[in-house]
Amino acid sequence: MMEKLTVIKVGGKIVEEPDTLARLISDFSVIPGKKMLIHGGGRSATRTAAEMGIESVMVDGRRITDANMLRIVTMVYGGLVNKNIVAALQANGVNAIGLTGADMDIIRSHRRPVEPIDFGYVGDVDRVDAEALGRLTEAGIVPVVAPLSHDGKGSMLNTNADTIASEVAQAMARLYDVTLVFCFEKPGVLADADDDNSVVPTINLTKFSELKKKGIVAGGMIPKLENAFRAIDAGVGEVVITRADAIADRTAGTRIF
Amino acid sequence: MMEKLTVIKVGGKIVEEPDTLARLISDFSVIPGKKMLIHGGGRSATRTAAEMGIESVMVDGRRITDANMLRIVTMVYGGLVNKNIVAALQANGVNAIGLTGADMDIIRSHRRPVEPIDFGYVGDVDRVDAEALGRLTEAGIVPVVAPLSHDGKGSMLNTNADTIASEVAQAMARLYDVTLVFCFEKPGVLADADDDNSVVPTINLTKFSELKKKGIVAGGMIPKLENAFRAIDAGVGEVVITRADAIADRTAGTRIF
Repeated sequence: MMEKLTVIKVGGKIVEEPDTLARLISDFSVIPGKKMLIHGGGRSATRTAAEMGIESVMVDGRRITDANMLRIVTMVYGGLVNKNIVAALQANGVNAIGLTGADMDIIRSHRRPVEPIDFGYVGDVDRVDAEALGRLTEAGIVPVVAPLSHDGKGSMLNTNADTIASEVAQAMARLYDVTLVFCFEKPGVLADADDDNSVVPTINLTKFSELKKKGIVAGGMIPKLENAFRAIDAGVGEVVITRADAIADRTAGTRIF
Repeated sequence: MMEKLTVIKVGGKIVEEPDTLARLISDFSVIPGKKMLIHGGGRSATRTAAEMGIESVMVDGRRITDANMLRIVTMVYGGLVNKNIVAALQANGVNAIGLTGADMDIIRSHRRPVEPIDFGYVGDVDRVDAEALGRLTEAGIVPVVAPLSHDGKGSMLNTNADTIASEVAQAMARLYDVTLVFCFEKPGVLADADDDNSVVPTINLTKFSELKKKGIVAGGMIPKLENAFRAIDAGVGEVVITRADAIADRTAGTRIF
């Protein structure tokens, strides 16, 4: 039986505000066993860009990353957000290490084709070096991964944090029994969108079809769940969708398997 | 006999310009054996601060680091400069990893006392974890260290790159036969300040006194050499002062031992 590894993805909003970051750090610190954290940082990137007089252009919720914006996301994701999380984890007794895809060549990607939309310096992941990450986790070190990959030709590339989390979880599933946790603004998949107490505790493929038919799962939740099932298909043990303040609660949220 | 480790410190100027960075990466890549790179980034920090409408205040050549400036140096040193070097090294076949002092808790410091001058979030180094760095170098990984440490209480601290290089070299001297290379705008210590061909090839303590008496070594070179002798005293095998474009040339520059 493989050892457990918990891979937690948190959005920028959580890690950018001192209060929610402190809560996350404290909750993440008590999660037992081997673990990793993948973070976003879009709001900080947008704010820093604005302070530098640079406008953030989004298409379908994704950032257009020209040379100037690549400079900003490299600074903000790889430096500011990542190192503040690492320093906070260290203060909480977690031996964290901050990484981008370039560090130890852990996440190699290629620049996304310019058709139909030229997103600029945005990378689609080719491979994750699970062995390199595994050597860290085996040594008791906790990787904190920024949403940045590299092309192996000297350029950093901006890469969606959900994608990094999925790809890392799938690669690590060769070495560990992986639980992938996506933090979300709601406490899970809700049977009634207006009732936070209506969390659907478990979803498998049959239940997913049923929930879609009934219209309970709709809109942006469909690609999220499809993404979760892809990770399961690729060997991830389970995917959990929960609220950031419930990551340490193994019974909270919606479990997909 | 201990294995050799080369620790190279380069200033911001070298790593911030595409041409000199490319040259550095190519020269650094061919250095045989175990190695590490420590970099600065002051010019980029000043430029980024200016783009954000923040003025850089220097006292005795050292940056006053208030909360805003800490944010900038964390972004610029830990993100922009560090990750661009790492990506470039990876493209050159060097398995680099970018680190700040917070990562794996490798460099712990305390905030400098506010008297006589309050430098703000500036750290004086307490200890370097040579074993953690040694595990990386033993695995064939090349650490690239930004001039940032942390206080163990959750805060990053701005720390002079020459100091980081000296402290790291001294700590690593417990595990390796360390050569510490400081890159400099001149090809070494010059017997005639106006003649770049007058490099003094070697300096020991006796020679240092002699050069000081004759006025050949004067001004800013005195603390640089005193710093080098302190590193030697602490176990570093030799210190080399050379020009960045000569780091791969084992006969260039001034060797202090």
